[in-house]
Amino acid sequence: MLDLIAFDADDTLWHNEVLYEDTQREFQALLAGYDGDGRARQLLFETEMQNLQTYGYGTKAFALSMIETAIQVSHGQVGGREIAKILDLAKTMLSAPVRLLDYVPETVAGLAASYPLMLITKGDLLDQERKILESGMAGHFTHIEVVSDKNEQVYRSLLERHRVAPDRFLMVGNSLRSDVLPVVALGGHAVHIPYHTTWAHERVDEAVPGTYVELEHMGLLPGHVERLSRSASESGM
Amino acid sequence: MLDLIAFDADDTLWHNEVLYEDTQREFQALLAGYDGDGRARQLLFETEMQNLQTYGYGTKAFALSMIETAIQVSHGQVGGREIAKILDLAKTMLSAPVRLLDYVPETVAGLAASYPLMLITKGDLLDQERKILESGMAGHFTHIEVVSDKNEQVYRSLLERHRVAPDRFLMVGNSLRSDVLPVVALGGHAVHIPYHTTWAHERVDEAVPGTYVELEHMGLLPGHVERLSRSASESGM
Repeated sequence: MLDLIAFDADDTLWHNEVLYEDTQREFQALLAGYDGDGRARQLLFETEMQNLQTYGYGTKAFALSMIETAIQVSHGQVGGREIAKILDLAKTMLSAPVRLLDYVPETVAGLAASYPLMLITKGDLLDQERKILESGMAGHFTHIEVVSDKNEQVYRSLLERHRVAPDRFLMVGNSLRSDVLPVVALGGHAVHIPYHTTWAHERVDEAVPGTYVELEHMGLLPGHVERLSRSASESGM
Repeated sequence: MLDLIAFDADDTLWHNEVLYEDTQREFQALLAGYDGDGRARQLLFETEMQNLQTYGYGTKAFALSMIETAIQVSHGQVGGREIAKILDLAKTMLSAPVRLLDYVPETVAGLAASYPLMLITKGDLLDQERKILESGMAGHFTHIEVVSDKNEQVYRSLLERHRVAPDRFLMVGNSLRSDVLPVVALGGHAVHIPYHTTWAHERVDEAVPGTYVELEHMGLLPGHVERLSRSASESGM
């Protein structure tokens, strides 16, 4: 009863947020001399949110927001050497090896034998393409979509373009905001697999109606897909 | 005899390189005090080329390369206020109004009545989407593809995905390197419409075999498309 299973990439297939956490720790340490009240990290998040509409998601946007925050925190006193260090941090992120999460290779390969799979990710186009290539997973995906945001409108137009009915679509990801809520709102199926840490922007406070399933790890996905199919065939769908 | 006509966007449908030129002039002026031998602009281009594989194309990549160059030219002496000015220049570029080139609205609307049209552009995903939306031209395009590079491999996979034979495909753009040569190499048709200024990276030195046509402006495109169709029907294609 599923025509398409789609996966988020960052923190669903491979580790990502840990890179941002590490970088933010180094960023704070770099600015410690200017940042008496320890506000650098909070200010960075606020700057990212202010720049989201202009810069979008991804590492280059994050780098530009780090530089802006460093100038702000230091009241313009930050030096060329420190800014150069921030550029180095960004380049390190952009060349960090891709580390797959547990159970990902066998789960993705197994489901690819029975279903068309799609990868839906937001962020820097080139960086996401690099990670997809490096992950060794690209061959399992029939479609790869890098989008500028993951909201209801974007999912709707993706499903229309690929001629898939929402109730025959399953989205799997770590973000309630980006992977689960908009898909459920469209009448699609969603599986939430939380990552051990979540970027503040992706956090959702309210409880969500129980139209999606939360799984502890990717290894539990094939069983869930089978249950979904069985209950659909029993109900005559 | 054409199944698909595709257009480049920057400097083909709307002005773009002039924004980069203006920004580079301001960048040079900003660094004049550190840049005794006037090498900032050449160094910026070299930095962009070194970063191309890591950052890709687009304004955010350009901003990060400007900052790196400013640090290099000033031997680390550049100040927070000057870096902040570079960030402002980038934000100005990312919110600059879209100015269509002459003959674009009527040509695109006219051809859209007879052919499926595709937009193929490289750069920042979000920024390109903003410009497409703001241009008012989006409705004329059946497909919009933002890609990380425009080489033979990318065109081949686009044509395969859309099931279009190369000899029934026409690409229109201002860059020999990105819009013409790779398409001609695949056996497709190409129209080169030079923009009055070309980014050094997109320049091609060698003469190219005469398998494409150069037009002075977009207003001449419908006539060329008609000639292409007529000569194909006369030769029984």
